[in-house]
Amino acid sequence: MNQRLQSFSQWLQEQNISFALITSTPNVFYLSGFYSDPHERLLALLVFPNSEPMLVCPQMEVSQAKRAGWQYDTLGYSDTDNPWELIYKNINARQVVPEQIAIEKSHLSLERYEQLHTYFPVRSFLNAEEKLRELRMIKDEKEIVILRQAAELADFGVDIGIKALAEGKTELDIIATIEYELKKKGVREMSFATMVLTGQKTADPHGVPGLATVQHGDFVLFDLGVVLDGYCSDITRTVVVGKATDEQKTIYETVLKAQLAAIHASRPGTEIGSIDKEARAIIEQAGYGAYFTHRVGHGLGIEVHEYPSMNATNTMPLQRGMVFTIEPGIYVPSIGGVRIEDDVFITDDGVETLTSYPKELLTI
Amino acid sequence: MNQRLQSFSQWLQEQNISFALITSTPNVFYLSGFYSDPHERLLALLVFPNSEPMLVCPQMEVSQAKRAGWQYDTLGYSDTDNPWELIYKNINARQVVPEQIAIEKSHLSLERYEQLHTYFPVRSFLNAEEKLRELRMIKDEKEIVILRQAAELADFGVDIGIKALAEGKTELDIIATIEYELKKKGVREMSFATMVLTGQKTADPHGVPGLATVQHGDFVLFDLGVVLDGYCSDITRTVVVGKATDEQKTIYETVLKAQLAAIHASRPGTEIGSIDKEARAIIEQAGYGAYFTHRVGHGLGIEVHEYPSMNATNTMPLQRGMVFTIEPGIYVPSIGGVRIEDDVFITDDGVETLTSYPKELLTI
Repeated sequence: MNQRLQSFSQWLQEQNISFALITSTPNVFYLSGFYSDPHERLLALLVFPNSEPMLVCPQMEVSQAKRAGWQYDTLGYSDTDNPWELIYKNINARQVVPEQIAIEKSHLSLERYEQLHTYFPVRSFLNAEEKLRELRMIKDEKEIVILRQAAELADFGVDIGIKALAEGKTELDIIATIEYELKKKGVREMSFATMVLTGQKTADPHGVPGLATVQHGDFVLFDLGVVLDGYCSDITRTVVVGKATDEQKTIYETVLKAQLAAIHASRPGTEIGSIDKEARAIIEQAGYGAYFTHRVGHGLGIEVHEYPSMNATNTMPLQRGMVFTIEPGIYVPSIGGVRIEDDVFITDDGVETLTSYPKELLTI
Repeated sequence: MNQRLQSFSQWLQEQNISFALITSTPNVFYLSGFYSDPHERLLALLVFPNSEPMLVCPQMEVSQAKRAGWQYDTLGYSDTDNPWELIYKNINARQVVPEQIAIEKSHLSLERYEQLHTYFPVRSFLNAEEKLRELRMIKDEKEIVILRQAAELADFGVDIGIKALAEGKTELDIIATIEYELKKKGVREMSFATMVLTGQKTADPHGVPGLATVQHGDFVLFDLGVVLDGYCSDITRTVVVGKATDEQKTIYETVLKAQLAAIHASRPGTEIGSIDKEARAIIEQAGYGAYFTHRVGHGLGIEVHEYPSMNATNTMPLQRGMVFTIEPGIYVPSIGGVRIEDDVFITDDGVETLTSYPKELLTI
């Protein structure tokens, strides 16, 4: 078994769990290497403390699972089969008498839980999500290689967007150009809806791009990322169209200083909360504390938001292999907002920045 | 209350349900007009048999709900509030003593169910999904207007794709061009991952576009749709690059004949299963029965696959207001596949085809 399955199996053993039924696309992918979202149909990975795992998927996906490298049992079912029945039979055939089952409580629907409970009326169902979040938090070498490439494509996307900037163009025009060029490079999916915001709209961290046009003097904010081989990137850059005012410059330089300080502070052993505090202190000192309204970043990997959460109250120490964003921002409603975001990776003795698009204030 | 909420409330009354907790984005949108997906945060619409509904959403979305036209109570919660506590208090304040609660069993996670059950340990939880599927199946005038526009944009997407076709271009190149032009028209989201398949890849109804290039003699298949104001479109066209062989022509003409016959048969009162059978009979007669491997279509609306399911065993009669796809196909592994798909709407006395891109065999 691969290292990931081994670690998870070991946890099952420690917790006296008879088996785990994992059904979310990201966790099945993490443990099996098989990426699939069969929507209303069941995808399930069964992991045991002391025997080989089994994959359950629609019959038409069995060959894809094998191509993805899955080498253990695969139970394919047709639309007329009952996959729960199939699971029940195969667990029985292994002479497992389940007592405790681990599931993903925030993912498993009540309907599926009721099915599972009917076939396996065990004394308790435990939540496997916390353990899987912990495992996924520490990336291995293979994951880092992919995350680096995904970050490079995010850099490329920002570059395209900035080159496409021109007064009068709409936010959606620019997004169309960015995604067109990324698709031509073979990118199939963005890691979230690409954000290009202009003018005062940049002051809303949750702004929605639309038909607003680029105007002279605007901040323009780009926030985008790609999915590459199942892994996400996420970058933000903010530029000024025309000449920056003194206040625009002050806001920009403050955010940049905060971002660089937070990156600089990131190394193994440092408490996660202190990274947020580092950035926040600089922004507060400059008098913009009230305008930095979100945490400094979030973990990044198979999902665009995962562990660790880079908020001020997180007392966990940074560890080698963690990958996360550092993205302080200042959002002043009357002026606009600036956010600068990189993806970083905690190395043995410091930090590597995966995204690398330049950060000095660009005026277009 | 709007007609939709009224119909749903009436059902709650008939079923003796104290209230319904609706949490899926499509159903909340259908009943409230508010489209939101706050991911791990809770979005909930509470509907009662005899009093006004309440919306529960993150505080930062309260103003968006109002802008979307929501005029009843909105309970906003911050990240430090417990939304279940909030729901509990507000239900209590209405002096409702719940006995039965309706939920969406295939959507509600076990974690959320456990929360709900802790606050409301009622004797039973009923599934509201079937009722909501039924309500959503019959579209009103407002929905038809939007679906017509969404279909026009799908026509436009196919037109762009066909104009962009050229030998040597990759499938992803052509997708990039289609989505670029649609984004420039203001389309924010496709209703599913755009499919452009070339050559033998067209023989796989679930094929994944990639770096395969357009070759002389290929079938090229386009399957795409947009989301407009919350509603989906879905069109498929297949063309030949260069000169069509006799067998390509036969396959194409057979699919077209089957598709036209199925559209022609669609009118109020006709059993749904007979639409599939109509198309299938023509394809079987031509000797390709084994190569038509899926149902003839699916309902279309807020979701790209919804009720009614257009399969041979569905005995429900067609009714005015139903909107669905008609998309027979023939997939011959050694030659390629042809699928022709339109979106149709059942009128008072017949059928209206919403998509209108020409269907005679096009050779590029």
